[in-house]
Amino acid sequence: MNANLRTDTSSAQRIFWSALDDQAQAQTLERPAQTVAEQTRRTVAALIEEVRSGGLEALRAITQRLDGAAPVSFEVGEDAFAAAEAAIDPALKQAMVEAAARITAFHKAGMAKPYAVETAPGVVCERMIRPIGRVGLYVPAGSAPLPSTALMLGVPAQLAGCREVVLCTPPRKDGSADPAVLVAARLTGVGRVFVLGGAQAIAAMAYGAGPVPACDKLFGPGNSYVTEAKQQVAQSGAAAIDMPAGPSEVLVIADAGANADFVAADLLSQAEHGPDSQVLLLSDDAGLLDRVEAALATQLAALPRADIARRALSASRLVQVESLEQAFAISNRYAPEHLILALREPRVWLPKVEAAGSVFLGDYTPEALGDYCSGTNHVLPTSGAARAYSGVSVASFQNFVSVQSASAAGLLAIGPSAVTLAEAERLEAHANAVRLRLQEAAR
Amino acid sequence: MNANLRTDTSSAQRIFWSALDDQAQAQTLERPAQTVAEQTRRTVAALIEEVRSGGLEALRAITQRLDGAAPVSFEVGEDAFAAAEAAIDPALKQAMVEAAARITAFHKAGMAKPYAVETAPGVVCERMIRPIGRVGLYVPAGSAPLPSTALMLGVPAQLAGCREVVLCTPPRKDGSADPAVLVAARLTGVGRVFVLGGAQAIAAMAYGAGPVPACDKLFGPGNSYVTEAKQQVAQSGAAAIDMPAGPSEVLVIADAGANADFVAADLLSQAEHGPDSQVLLLSDDAGLLDRVEAALATQLAALPRADIARRALSASRLVQVESLEQAFAISNRYAPEHLILALREPRVWLPKVEAAGSVFLGDYTPEALGDYCSGTNHVLPTSGAARAYSGVSVASFQNFVSVQSASAAGLLAIGPSAVTLAEAERLEAHANAVRLRLQEAAR
Repeated sequence: MNANLRTDTSSAQRIFWSALDDQAQAQTLERPAQTVAEQTRRTVAALIEEVRSGGLEALRAITQRLDGAAPVSFEVGEDAFAAAEAAIDPALKQAMVEAAARITAFHKAGMAKPYAVETAPGVVCERMIRPIGRVGLYVPAGSAPLPSTALMLGVPAQLAGCREVVLCTPPRKDGSADPAVLVAARLTGVGRVFVLGGAQAIAAMAYGAGPVPACDKLFGPGNSYVTEAKQQVAQSGAAAIDMPAGPSEVLVIADAGANADFVAADLLSQAEHGPDSQVLLLSDDAGLLDRVEAALATQLAALPRADIARRALSASRLVQVESLEQAFAISNRYAPEHLILALREPRVWLPKVEAAGSVFLGDYTPEALGDYCSGTNHVLPTSGAARAYSGVSVASFQNFVSVQSASAAGLLAIGPSAVTLAEAERLEAHANAVRLRLQEAAR
Repeated sequence: MNANLRTDTSSAQRIFWSALDDQAQAQTLERPAQTVAEQTRRTVAALIEEVRSGGLEALRAITQRLDGAAPVSFEVGEDAFAAAEAAIDPALKQAMVEAAARITAFHKAGMAKPYAVETAPGVVCERMIRPIGRVGLYVPAGSAPLPSTALMLGVPAQLAGCREVVLCTPPRKDGSADPAVLVAARLTGVGRVFVLGGAQAIAAMAYGAGPVPACDKLFGPGNSYVTEAKQQVAQSGAAAIDMPAGPSEVLVIADAGANADFVAADLLSQAEHGPDSQVLLLSDDAGLLDRVEAALATQLAALPRADIARRALSASRLVQVESLEQAFAISNRYAPEHLILALREPRVWLPKVEAAGSVFLGDYTPEALGDYCSGTNHVLPTSGAARAYSGVSVASFQNFVSVQSASAAGLLAIGPSAVTLAEAERLEAHANAVRLRLQEAAR
């Protein structure tokens, strides 16, 4: 089989890695084009300006215009929370309670602790931890509302102890919020929920508008307008953001023993997120690639979101590699958001992973477990950002403040070094601030 | 004394906080204007584009144009490192060695550890820690070279274990690098040093140009061109950056018992950084403010960088507050880069600090200690960014990767929850990826 040619049995490209030259290899790992159109930039900048200057009236006008429904009150009241509790399926509530418990267990165990070190006799350096004061969570509801995202952001915010946690989520057709999102918000102690979506929600949480307070940091995924709005408010210094966000993606490394049906299902569960999602499968076994290709076709036919998945698959690749070592080199270069190791000995290979958002080991750990309820966070770096960004954790909601304290003896011990360094940098006032104290301490 | 009027004995404004209305209070806490001029934005964008498209030739042309000296080789060779070792004062070398040891001790003690939690029987969630592969450090040399910054960035990069650490620092008039910066770089194991400054250095480290490799994340302070270049490469996704940077600043809270000479020296050591530096003094004691004002005038007269400091002081304020509680409320609102607690019982007050970059306790802990050698990092969030950003630490050079592993039993335990949540979000392929495995696991 000539694996360099596209095959038509599935929409994904079939590639033999070692047959490609450098340029073709680079192209294979390119994400679908994500350059933000100048038009999007301008639209978002205009929306942000409209919200900043227009406040509540602007939020009403924009929501009416874009969502077709302006709620009487953007803030969700107690009656709506109560109605949501009554409305949702008890099995869904139970699944959310269990997921929240596991997310809490995992995130809590990883929380940083304050510490102190005596770096010289009489000199103590410390790290204090403080919650970020006011945080804004965005829970999208593009093709469907995502209560799981409310859990993934609400749990670490609660563990960090943020003074005020605000959540925005787009209105449904009738102007109300999704009940499952409201229940998830309440489960994690989110203080105030606003039925507000898109770039206007990001602008409101960054600058404050109408009832929405200005937040110090904004979190959460969203469409290209939300993402661009987050970038713009971060760039202007109005609010920090969790990370740059792009379309979701998965890379699977599978060996000859992998279950082709499972692998195909994992590729499709990523592909159904959106037409710009990307999936990559790397295997050293041509037979496995053949079987996955066949399984993709079969499973795709049965999916309600087959159209979206088929479009995503067209940007995706099934790559035959020389060896698993080569697969890990490719994966580290790509730095996927999700990395599935469908290998017989995934733990043996794990040390080779240098850059990825979240890793899934073996046949019984589909990405969907991490998306919902294993305990890890599903807000993860995309588009190769995993080379230098990490997923959301409790630390994302905290400030780490260093503290130092020198006694007179401590100053006498390290002060002369500081004077020498300050003089080398020609910062005379720095040297003077130490010298004055050295004189006093030496008395 | 009418404290609301500017006085002429020093250039700093004297203010009585409670006499101000909301707007005047907000104005008092405003940083000197930092809006990046459109001209700066365009200049920087053009420089970045020139470096991206022109590579080595562009670096030569730009350096010749802006620094007046294009080095034969941008990369510092072994002979230059050896010459630097021979050239610097042994006392300076010794001070750097000691500072590096204390910075190492403090940073190492705060390093995060990998961990694992069984979140359900058969479901293990973990956090792995990986160094960011290739990092770029920028060490400015505007009014003077800053070897201390090389230590502050090099030590945590080394502790993190980054595969490649690259450092850029501007050329001196003769095209060479500052010897102390070279020695500091070698002390901390920096691999390659390039004599290259400004936005062109940031562009080279973000995209790769000439001998400078493309880096995953860029660190370090710099002038407004460097800062703007970091923002632009971060925005484009070319490289992550440590934090948005602005002019340096200090806020001092002093009580009646504070030493006015010390306080004045601290204010001046911040003010000498640059004309856009800002210093704020808050005290509940008018007498202390009077004494500091007098000490400022005396000390200022003796400073070599008096002109810079005088300009910075003109944007600065001596604020009389009703109480120390009020001082801490103001400080938390301002979120200073450096916070000095010149108080009789600084530890008692420390819990009130909500947002600051680094805190200095008591009379014998001048900011200069933290700038150089107490052990804490001096690359800190400015311009109020301390509300949602932290100073550089080892974690700044690491990626945190989550890992999950479910056995068949683990999947049976939590898989049904995942299916319920996926169905609620109408993500059928997600549900399917779990269901297929539930069938297999139940066999």
